[in-house]
Amino acid sequence: MSKRLIFNGFSMNCVSHVFHGMWRHPDTKQTEFNELATWVELVKLLERGKFDALFMADVIGVDPSYEGGWDRYIEEAVQIPINDSSTLIAALIGATEQLGLNFTSSILQDHPFSFARRVSTLDHLSGGRIGWNIVTSVSHNAAQNFGFDRIVAHDERYKWAHEYLDVVYKLWEGSWDDDALVVDKLRGLYANPSGVHRIRHEGKRYRVLGPHLTTPSPQRVPVLYQAGASTAGRAFAAAHAEGTFIASQSPAGAQRLTQQVREKVRGFGRHDDDLLFIQGMSFVVGSTEEEARRLAREQDEYISLDGLAAHISRDLGVDLGLLDPDRPVDDLKIEGVQGLVRFFEDANPGVRPTVRNLISAYSQSGRIVGTPESIADQLEEWQRAGIDGVNVMYHRTPHSFARFIEHVTPVLQRRGLAQSEYAPGTLREKLFAGRGPRLNGRHPAARYRGAFRDEPAPAAIEAAQAES
Amino acid sequence: MSKRLIFNGFSMNCVSHVFHGMWRHPDTKQTEFNELATWVELVKLLERGKFDALFMADVIGVDPSYEGGWDRYIEEAVQIPINDSSTLIAALIGATEQLGLNFTSSILQDHPFSFARRVSTLDHLSGGRIGWNIVTSVSHNAAQNFGFDRIVAHDERYKWAHEYLDVVYKLWEGSWDDDALVVDKLRGLYANPSGVHRIRHEGKRYRVLGPHLTTPSPQRVPVLYQAGASTAGRAFAAAHAEGTFIASQSPAGAQRLTQQVREKVRGFGRHDDDLLFIQGMSFVVGSTEEEARRLAREQDEYISLDGLAAHISRDLGVDLGLLDPDRPVDDLKIEGVQGLVRFFEDANPGVRPTVRNLISAYSQSGRIVGTPESIADQLEEWQRAGIDGVNVMYHRTPHSFARFIEHVTPVLQRRGLAQSEYAPGTLREKLFAGRGPRLNGRHPAARYRGAFRDEPAPAAIEAAQAES
Repeated sequence: MSKRLIFNGFSMNCVSHVFHGMWRHPDTKQTEFNELATWVELVKLLERGKFDALFMADVIGVDPSYEGGWDRYIEEAVQIPINDSSTLIAALIGATEQLGLNFTSSILQDHPFSFARRVSTLDHLSGGRIGWNIVTSVSHNAAQNFGFDRIVAHDERYKWAHEYLDVVYKLWEGSWDDDALVVDKLRGLYANPSGVHRIRHEGKRYRVLGPHLTTPSPQRVPVLYQAGASTAGRAFAAAHAEGTFIASQSPAGAQRLTQQVREKVRGFGRHDDDLLFIQGMSFVVGSTEEEARRLAREQDEYISLDGLAAHISRDLGVDLGLLDPDRPVDDLKIEGVQGLVRFFEDANPGVRPTVRNLISAYSQSGRIVGTPESIADQLEEWQRAGIDGVNVMYHRTPHSFARFIEHVTPVLQRRGLAQSEYAPGTLREKLFAGRGPRLNGRHPAARYRGAFRDEPAPAAIEAAQAES
Repeated sequence: MSKRLIFNGFSMNCVSHVFHGMWRHPDTKQTEFNELATWVELVKLLERGKFDALFMADVIGVDPSYEGGWDRYIEEAVQIPINDSSTLIAALIGATEQLGLNFTSSILQDHPFSFARRVSTLDHLSGGRIGWNIVTSVSHNAAQNFGFDRIVAHDERYKWAHEYLDVVYKLWEGSWDDDALVVDKLRGLYANPSGVHRIRHEGKRYRVLGPHLTTPSPQRVPVLYQAGASTAGRAFAAAHAEGTFIASQSPAGAQRLTQQVREKVRGFGRHDDDLLFIQGMSFVVGSTEEEARRLAREQDEYISLDGLAAHISRDLGVDLGLLDPDRPVDDLKIEGVQGLVRFFEDANPGVRPTVRNLISAYSQSGRIVGTPESIADQLEEWQRAGIDGVNVMYHRTPHSFARFIEHVTPVLQRRGLAQSEYAPGTLREKLFAGRGPRLNGRHPAARYRGAFRDEPAPAAIEAAQAES
């Protein structure tokens, strides 16, 4: 029997995440994203469908990247407005019992001391069901909301991310010993001070004394995701992440990529299966192939090519709105579109893709249209190519998830490709069968266990303490 | 009939908030503060009792302020460990329908851009039930967790707080016009770009371009609380707050204080009733006076004088643990204990209070011991002295709240001193009868309404945008 795939419901705390224009459909609750009830309905559905987690993406800025401005993003709600994802995750803890709750937070947006406490609080309240998608933000506007003139240079951003992780690892793993907590009402001893440590972090961007203010949560460190597709991003994922998001155009592409990255994982002294590969995919399900294709065509009528173009322009850093839509793409030497070009050419042999073709292809890439059985066949192929799971993207919500769970999940479950029951324990234990709730000893965070038991005191800090 | 009093359940996301040592009692859930169920039980109880809100205090550091160290704080869980309060508030939204949810956040802990988005998200998800207690943090360790050697000087901290509020006011009130949101599925128009504005804040500590990433929430600005007791703190509350926390030792003291501060409120062009005074109080309820006194005595056996002394030492900035407990307090010239000294002397005429007496008096100040009728009588007296509401402090949780709600609330309701039903609308509408969901035009945030419609662009920002 195959190893089962992980399934996450992929969403964003906004109107329109990926398939822009779909919010106009009469049967989608995207415009109700401000309402708690919308999300409670979704997570209860995902939990009924034995999905592993809700996975919330995020951005923290809107750039004037399309048609020379930002108007189209606002008019079509292309990831703006967008609400905070960790707050939503917190609000959904009580509506779920088993579902993992993954959110996205950029190193730009929160100080690591506050962030570490917030995440520990989430992990406590949820019984260890929290995952964090680490991002560094590629938006100028995001940087401009936090004091910068423009985004911090790429390599510098990754150095920053390393320091950020260093701080939170120290707080989560090094500040409280396992035996610090006593909770003895009769002796009146709650915790043992000798087991609680300052971390005394002094780095380029942060100085953090500690101690961490919360007791060790079930996972201590949330399940760590990272999605960077650059060389530095892949190296970062290989070093730190337990799950990485990929958007390959084919099983063969996924196979090449997973093999490359797994080699890097080993290079960091970790094992192949310490990093899970989660492919982004969407589905249109019909009772026949013909019906599925019809539903896909009907759905495509709601897609906004301008909305998609605005999204792609932002991601590529090239304003497609200022280009002639009929111009062949390969004349333009745009970085980062090779996968999409190949995807178009495979579907349209002999045709030179134009800018317009590329935009249109975007809405179909990573999409499987078919019957439950044929979708299961294709997922099996992806699984053999080396992916560990799927972030299921919606066209409409909760409709897309409901269709998948009603029709595809049972077929996958029969084939052993989807779980039929949740494994016990924390999110980490559910994702990595046979392991414990905490990071294994090969992970870089593990080096901070017990690391602060006998730290000397920097003079400046002691002087201030003496005065306090 | 009297104007009704506001009642908040006062708590902290930790084991021991005020009455240290009580966590050792067999019938209190303080040690279960990491569990969501503990808090869900509490808020459902408060909502049944028609309490206005849960009010969560917070601190973000632990200082070596007692007996020359921090051991006692950790041993007796004196506000450490302590989890994030906004995360808890988020998790409680779904468990409540009417209850206000107030949390505390320091200007140290979050960048105002992130903070504003988080609060708007909370306000959306809760239908406008959010309040924010603005603090500046008086702990050296708090400062040391965020890059400083020691706390920022008092006046500088309040300047910082003013800038912090300026940024969030601009985002909440000035970034999205009331008519920006269209949500027209047929025209495919979600929002009107001409109604969404960058705020272009450039101050001493922050540079924030904007726009705010969320649409206007029901209240736009959460209900604003501030508790500073210094001159600068009271002025800050008079200028900005809608509710201020006081800890007077008697109705006469409350009358003096509220009159003083209300004068300052008028000085800022606001009205007397634009600021609510919320007195901190605890209650021991008996069916007879004798039973109430007996219950208080039994309860006092669990109080830890060391725990209290550690708490007071931190607040006063004087290590009481290094002083002779039998030394008279007035020899020591400690600032900030006058109220407590007077409280002790009133109860013990002719006795010169010692350090030990002072610590012990702390556990009894702000406490009313009596029958439901006599408690109601005393609350009526406090109300006539000018307070608008009470933050009910627990000795045990949820026990203390349950006793109050079962026995005292019905008496207060009969007298019109407590509400019997929730008023409709947002928290602000519930607290300020006859007003709307948003801040009135006298509040300093109101000046940012429509303020960014035609802002010119600072050159540095535009240059970066041109490159993006």
